[in-house]
Amino acid sequence: KINGDRLWDSLMEMARIGPGVAGGNNRQTLTDADAEGRALFRRWCEEAGCTMGLDTMGNMFARREGTDPDALPVYVGSHLDTQPTGGKYDGVLGVLGGLEIIRSLNDLGIKTKHPIVVTNWTNEEGTRFAPAMLASGVFAGKHSQDWAYARVDAEGKRFGDELKRIGYVGDEPVGDRKMHAFFELHIEQGPILEAEGKEIGVVTHGQGLRWIECTVTGKESHTGSTPMNMRRNAGRGLARITELVHEIAMKNQPNAVGAIGHIDVYPNSRNIIPGKVVFTVDMRTHLLDKLNAMVAEFDEKAPKLCEEIGVEFSSEIVGQFDPPAFDEGCVGAVRSAAQRLGYSHMDIVSGAGHDACWINDLYPTAMVMCPCVDGLSHNEAEEISPEWAAAGANVLFHAVVETSEI
Amino acid sequence: KINGDRLWDSLMEMARIGPGVAGGNNRQTLTDADAEGRALFRRWCEEAGCTMGLDTMGNMFARREGTDPDALPVYVGSHLDTQPTGGKYDGVLGVLGGLEIIRSLNDLGIKTKHPIVVTNWTNEEGTRFAPAMLASGVFAGKHSQDWAYARVDAEGKRFGDELKRIGYVGDEPVGDRKMHAFFELHIEQGPILEAEGKEIGVVTHGQGLRWIECTVTGKESHTGSTPMNMRRNAGRGLARITELVHEIAMKNQPNAVGAIGHIDVYPNSRNIIPGKVVFTVDMRTHLLDKLNAMVAEFDEKAPKLCEEIGVEFSSEIVGQFDPPAFDEGCVGAVRSAAQRLGYSHMDIVSGAGHDACWINDLYPTAMVMCPCVDGLSHNEAEEISPEWAAAGANVLFHAVVETSEI
Ligand SMILES: NC(=O)NCCC(=O)O
Ligand SMILES: NC(=O)NCCC(=O)O
Repeated sequence: KINGDRLWDSLMEMARIGPGVAGGNNRQTLTDADAEGRALFRRWCEEAGCTMGLDTMGNMFARREGTDPDALPVYVGSHLDTQPTGGKYDGVLGVLGGLEIIRSLNDLGIKTKHPIVVTNWTNEEGTRFAPAMLASGVFAGKHSQDWAYARVDAEGKRFGDELKRIGYVGDEPVGDRKMHAFFELHIEQGPILEAEGKEIGVVTHGQGLRWIECTVTGKESHTGSTPMNMRRNAGRGLARITELVHEIAMKNQPNAVGAIGHIDVYPNSRNIIPGKVVFTVDMRTHLLDKLNAMVAEFDEKAPKLCEEIGVEFSSEIVGQFDPPAFDEGCVGAVRSAAQRLGYSHMDIVSGAGHDACWINDLYPTAMVMCPCVDGLSHNEAEEISPEWAAAGANVLFHAVVETSEI
Repeated sequence: KINGDRLWDSLMEMARIGPGVAGGNNRQTLTDADAEGRALFRRWCEEAGCTMGLDTMGNMFARREGTDPDALPVYVGSHLDTQPTGGKYDGVLGVLGGLEIIRSLNDLGIKTKHPIVVTNWTNEEGTRFAPAMLASGVFAGKHSQDWAYARVDAEGKRFGDELKRIGYVGDEPVGDRKMHAFFELHIEQGPILEAEGKEIGVVTHGQGLRWIECTVTGKESHTGSTPMNMRRNAGRGLARITELVHEIAMKNQPNAVGAIGHIDVYPNSRNIIPGKVVFTVDMRTHLLDKLNAMVAEFDEKAPKLCEEIGVEFSSEIVGQFDPPAFDEGCVGAVRSAAQRLGYSHMDIVSGAGHDACWINDLYPTAMVMCPCVDGLSHNEAEEISPEWAAAGANVLFHAVVETSEI
């Protein structure tokens, strides 16, 4: 078994970097806080005897050698970046859980045939630079590196420039690694495991996602002196589309979701009718046909809702992945580890996107989930218990060690 | 008659300070650009032989002496601050139109019995610091200076600190001036004069206004992994209230308006369900009973619309004035000046709020309006013709000179 106290202490130490305002974290990708978190992770890995690799997307790879020089490494990890109002565990548990595996193998003096590599993937959250899972997506050949470098944040800063600024452009070409398998431990971020009283979620599938960035264009004019019949209020377009997204999700129950999290209003003045609103629709479900049908309904109705009130609509996909089905062998390794260790467990579909979803396209991949309190995530109040963390890390440990062969 | 070319040249020269991005201006109150605009106005006034007074709210008073030491001054003016995406005339025409009166009196060697004072009122727009007409409101005793100083902008900067920073805290206690009368020239900011083919609007009344700052509170959570029935989406509260405001305005046609121009979403991340949305409702009509009924309907329905979807609603009035009726004597002076000069004219209700609305509570006040193209204002594309500007300034000139007595 892994050392649960050490894992928890490391989680708490990492959480001190980039503190939020309400007990959680604001350690957004490629900020100074991200650089500080990366440096701590690097130090810990080196102290555990690993060598650190860094690719041109800033992905970090801490390697513990195996006994067979020809064996491909087993990879394990997640991400250290957080939401602007994020929790202490989303992503971090998977990275530090991976590190805890190395530390425990060292403690126990166990050598594995395959090397084990702990990864920290850059910009998983996708808040500062859309889309989410950006660097694992480039690794998996979903996006070109040039395209990724050109992503801009709300202040117009480029991903490539910010990566350079924090000193994390590596020498190694991104995607230049072969994997024997990849495992990711993550908190569920939803309510199911807690409600069902299970310690472990064996992730068999994930939801697909579409991020549709919409621009509604009206006409800036005076809120007081413009007669109602001359108004072209882009804010009303946002209002109608907010409700449309909700309706589409509700029509597709169970197992479909939809909302708008990001909204920018221009010029955002109390006495100017909004001339432009830019916002991102997030729609997901684990059934590809359903996802495509939801998007088709949106694409048909959103422009009409805008046209009816005299405002213009345009949209662009800024993030997308189809519902992944994880590798049966790796999923089986996770399930049998949970069984062997005596943890209550169930098969589960991941509600969120994860780096594992992209890596799954290339190499055998699976995920381990542990519950989180009230299913709450992307909130500074995100919480898990040390016992849940340890259970998740133990299952990860057994699945990884089994796959790495002793 | 005034010198229309000189007036136009001055308008164009002022417009070079704090340029916008689309031909208009971003010279928001208490910014460096505002300071630059003020300095230019001060220089012009001094070149025209005026002495400059400055009060503790940053209101500027350029005085041309009269022949009777006991006569109270006739005041004329408006504001030099603009919206973030504002036009070149909103406010500026009234200030520089006042200056042009002084310059023309100098050219013609005319002495008036009453002194004439040209004012630039601080923070008329109310975008950076709510409410609008802040400094004329303090002058008129509607707000305390302490309260005004404590207003904060979106970055948390205080009005008082910013006024000091740009060097415009005067010695003179605000409100320490008596007026014989006050006249304000302003562009209409609406479509009526142009549609009716009139060169001059004789403003008899104004609309009343309520600015209701609303906070809808939901719960931040993950857009992917939070089931629909567990969501508390503050963005849906905004959507419902956007449509409520529109409906209330439409129900009260003609002569009522309503919209939401300012919206801030927290934490504004593509994959976080909005936990909080703060926005300002703007409702207006020139009938006080109707205005109160509109607000009452809003106060009754908005909390219910939020409650129905599990989010919380709270609100606060951050700006308000009742519909003003201008002084019959001053209005008559404007009307007869338009008549005498042979300009086509009509009585009109001001759709926007103006400093004149507050001063009207203290001293005999009236306003002159000129058309603007397509009724467009609070938009960088705001436009007027040199002929309209000259007509407005000529009417202002005659009304002011008549009231100042030669
Ligand atoms: N795990 C997680 O929250 N990832 C962010 C990408 C997503 O929105 O699902
Ligand atoms: N004239 C003008 O646009 N004033 C700003 C205050 C208002 O919103 O009416």
